[in-house]
Amino acid sequence: MIMLGMFCVRVFSGLMGFRATPRVRSLHSFPGITVAQIDEEVAKLLQLKAQIGGDDGKHQFVLKTAKGTRDYNPKQMAIREKVFSTIIGCFKRHGAETIDTPVFELKETLTGKYGEDSKLIYDLKDQGGELLSLRYDLTVPFARYLAMNKITNIKRYHIAKVYRRDNPAMTRGRYREFYQCDFDIAGQYDAMIPDAECLKIVHEILSGLDLGDFRIKVNDRRILDGMFAVCGVPDDKFRTICSTVDKLDKMPWEDVRKEMVNEKGLSEEAADQIGEYVSLQGGMDLAERLLQDQKMSQSKQACAGLSDIKLLFSYLQLFQATDKVVFDLSLARGLDYYTGIIYEAVLTQAGVATVSTEAQNGAEESVSVGSVAGGGRYDGLVGMFDPKGRKVPCVGVSIGIERIFSIMEQKAEAAAEKVRTTEVQVMVASAQKNLLEERLQLVSELWNAGIKAEVMYKKNPKLLSQLQHCEESGIPLVAILGEQELKDGVVKLRVVASREEKEHIK
Amino acid sequence: MIMLGMFCVRVFSGLMGFRATPRVRSLHSFPGITVAQIDEEVAKLLQLKAQIGGDDGKHQFVLKTAKGTRDYNPKQMAIREKVFSTIIGCFKRHGAETIDTPVFELKETLTGKYGEDSKLIYDLKDQGGELLSLRYDLTVPFARYLAMNKITNIKRYHIAKVYRRDNPAMTRGRYREFYQCDFDIAGQYDAMIPDAECLKIVHEILSGLDLGDFRIKVNDRRILDGMFAVCGVPDDKFRTICSTVDKLDKMPWEDVRKEMVNEKGLSEEAADQIGEYVSLQGGMDLAERLLQDQKMSQSKQACAGLSDIKLLFSYLQLFQATDKVVFDLSLARGLDYYTGIIYEAVLTQAGVATVSTEAQNGAEESVSVGSVAGGGRYDGLVGMFDPKGRKVPCVGVSIGIERIFSIMEQKAEAAAEKVRTTEVQVMVASAQKNLLEERLQLVSELWNAGIKAEVMYKKNPKLLSQLQHCEESGIPLVAILGEQELKDGVVKLRVVASREEKEHIK
Repeated sequence: MIMLGMFCVRVFSGLMGFRATPRVRSLHSFPGITVAQIDEEVAKLLQLKAQIGGDDGKHQFVLKTAKGTRDYNPKQMAIREKVFSTIIGCFKRHGAETIDTPVFELKETLTGKYGEDSKLIYDLKDQGGELLSLRYDLTVPFARYLAMNKITNIKRYHIAKVYRRDNPAMTRGRYREFYQCDFDIAGQYDAMIPDAECLKIVHEILSGLDLGDFRIKVNDRRILDGMFAVCGVPDDKFRTICSTVDKLDKMPWEDVRKEMVNEKGLSEEAADQIGEYVSLQGGMDLAERLLQDQKMSQSKQACAGLSDIKLLFSYLQLFQATDKVVFDLSLARGLDYYTGIIYEAVLTQAGVATVSTEAQNGAEESVSVGSVAGGGRYDGLVGMFDPKGRKVPCVGVSIGIERIFSIMEQKAEAAAEKVRTTEVQVMVASAQKNLLEERLQLVSELWNAGIKAEVMYKKNPKLLSQLQHCEESGIPLVAILGEQELKDGVVKLRVVASREEKEHIK
Repeated sequence: MIMLGMFCVRVFSGLMGFRATPRVRSLHSFPGITVAQIDEEVAKLLQLKAQIGGDDGKHQFVLKTAKGTRDYNPKQMAIREKVFSTIIGCFKRHGAETIDTPVFELKETLTGKYGEDSKLIYDLKDQGGELLSLRYDLTVPFARYLAMNKITNIKRYHIAKVYRRDNPAMTRGRYREFYQCDFDIAGQYDAMIPDAECLKIVHEILSGLDLGDFRIKVNDRRILDGMFAVCGVPDDKFRTICSTVDKLDKMPWEDVRKEMVNEKGLSEEAADQIGEYVSLQGGMDLAERLLQDQKMSQSKQACAGLSDIKLLFSYLQLFQATDKVVFDLSLARGLDYYTGIIYEAVLTQAGVATVSTEAQNGAEESVSVGSVAGGGRYDGLVGMFDPKGRKVPCVGVSIGIERIFSIMEQKAEAAAEKVRTTEVQVMVASAQKNLLEERLQLVSELWNAGIKAEVMYKKNPKLLSQLQHCEESGIPLVAILGEQELKDGVVKLRVVASREEKEHIK
């Protein structure tokens, strides 16, 4: 009791103090009190908590990775590197540079960028010093990077992990730690040319990865806002109604309508008008028709968006990419920072294994198999970071690589493919005992000559186990040392698959 | 005053409660009080703090990366990728697979693995659910991975960022977020064969990167422990005295001795005996001499370590790597988990720029320019994670890549090298106006053919600005479209450097 009593008194007296802003300070009478003191007391409390927890029992230890995360084993890594090489190959073909940013940012850098999704941001513990958060995407760090370095033109890709405290669905490739592969074009350019290149890139990557058929839905934030305006949505409800429309790929219109009316307080009439528009899909022709639409054409914003959609389709024709692109008014995308065109790619056929997984959980999700890429134009984001508010128009795309990994892994498993996880060319083996030194010397010579080679870490390994290792890990050649060969100054080289042998002068 | 008063009362009453373990509970009389309540109060305090900070002024926004972290710009990325390709090339030459693990682990996974350095671990905020920490190195996650997947044999590399709340020294390549490049061999093998390969790898990588001369210091935890025992260090002080010895590369013996005697309570006599041993350096001969040393030879542990050092040197001779390796009794390495051989590579000559930076801060550090690789044997770590304590012997090495990046960047800057940041082969340009569609069509054809190509995102760019872009970013070829060429069905291809031109049938 004595110890705890003292602790409480100390903490209490500490708590009475925190740094007050000039305005707040007048409210109370404790001078010279700082935020650092709050930090200190917090640290003490948490330390105490750790001590309490530690006493609970010695071996409650759980052997697992954090919720929503996973390790990659060597086979998964081999698949991952193959996918990355296709994607990076495409980014480089389009002339992109690459950058990297830290995994955490100042908390305030992320504040106010993600709308309702902000609650999914991972914060770091306040251990003194700056308040930090794990990055939620690569776009906000990119905008911060541009503003900080006063860069007005760049075409860059960035492949790195991002973090979201979302509800994980690991079998479907939804993790709390996951890779994003972003390609963005920043700079003041003529309308829709960089935007069309982003869509071309999605088209190339999804075709190149051979994931089955796909569709790229496009829409424009200005069309959505114009539509909301002409349907009678109050200005201050645009963003929240937009978030609700965004759920159309996950729930039926009836539920979306209910959320609009019951939760967001929209009139039934407005909701029904929205309902009519968001059921529309088409191509350049739909954009033309809507430009003639009595209601829609009243919105200048909507018209600007519709004209750009037309222009976009004309460029996509030159890129031979219109076959997969659909103008879809139900596409909203949840993030706050988009200002113009938005897009999302979905696979329309799932791999066999994927479909069966989803069937177990009920079949209603089989229509929209999953978004594998998304992006859009965000002309205001960099300006939010610039002290003078200077704008740098940007458009970009993010490839949802985890979903793609899942599909590729399931494919490899289904095909029972043998995935090699090393590139070793030669195994240095011995047929007799006491040849460790000779093996080490030979493997070292091979390494020095740039040849990928292995040796068993045993003094006297059996020839059979050395050959078995070759077969298991797909090593094509084995160099066999024996006493006779050493006398003759030769090495016997055997092709593992055919057992063909040849002697080489050492 | 009223608000704050209420706040304090609320927090105070909250603080009186925390979950007590059975043992602690008897000390006080508040029942039903939980850790969750502490968390809640902590969250409230931090929220309050954020509000205080946030009210200070609307735009105190600081445009920066978190302390001790940095962005990589495209030039730095180009250098980074070159270094990685050398290192990965070496790991693959030695037959390593690769794995990846999440950036954060359960907090308890990291607990008790890092000795006095544990205070440098970044914790995530408790937002409900598991308590998480950012990984401090790649070794502990590797051991966790092995135990979790019951893997007893693997040779793997892992390149990823790790996190330490250390005092950053950015000009010298010391960051709070930094890359580690780890290579480890797990499995029950004959003594010192995998250990020698790890040193061979350090030798190959540091030679391959061409960083100037280097030395690899080796020692053995068993020799250190044996030495502590025969010098009269009490058993329970081995680890803390070892931490102090580890500081010998950063401070002179006098200060190390002072810390041992004054802070750690070691006798002056014991400290002086340690002082004699830790001044010794040599090769296989030194190991032989110490095996005969009257005092040292009393320790079985030390003798086992010394015999292994002899064996190691014999294998290194076969690998032609002894030229850079020194047996150095002052090498301690701070981490708790090492059980056998330990090593550390240092550059003995710094790049020009590095030396001048250090000269500014006083010249005393010019001898040991900096550790660029380190590692050792840790036979007990995996067993700490295995529910049944099954051991998997491991030995590995970690390349300190940030230090290497710094040197390479300074080198590139000093040489005023032109580093290309893209791989674009052709720029599709136009000599006249109104050829946007033709340019887009041609660049799309090139992309489809796998050629790295760019086009300016303007309707009517000037030929000069298109050519300037080629020169600035090192694009070797430009395909120029003009009305005449279009009529003739050809494309004019110009070599940017020589201005040589040729017509090609389109």
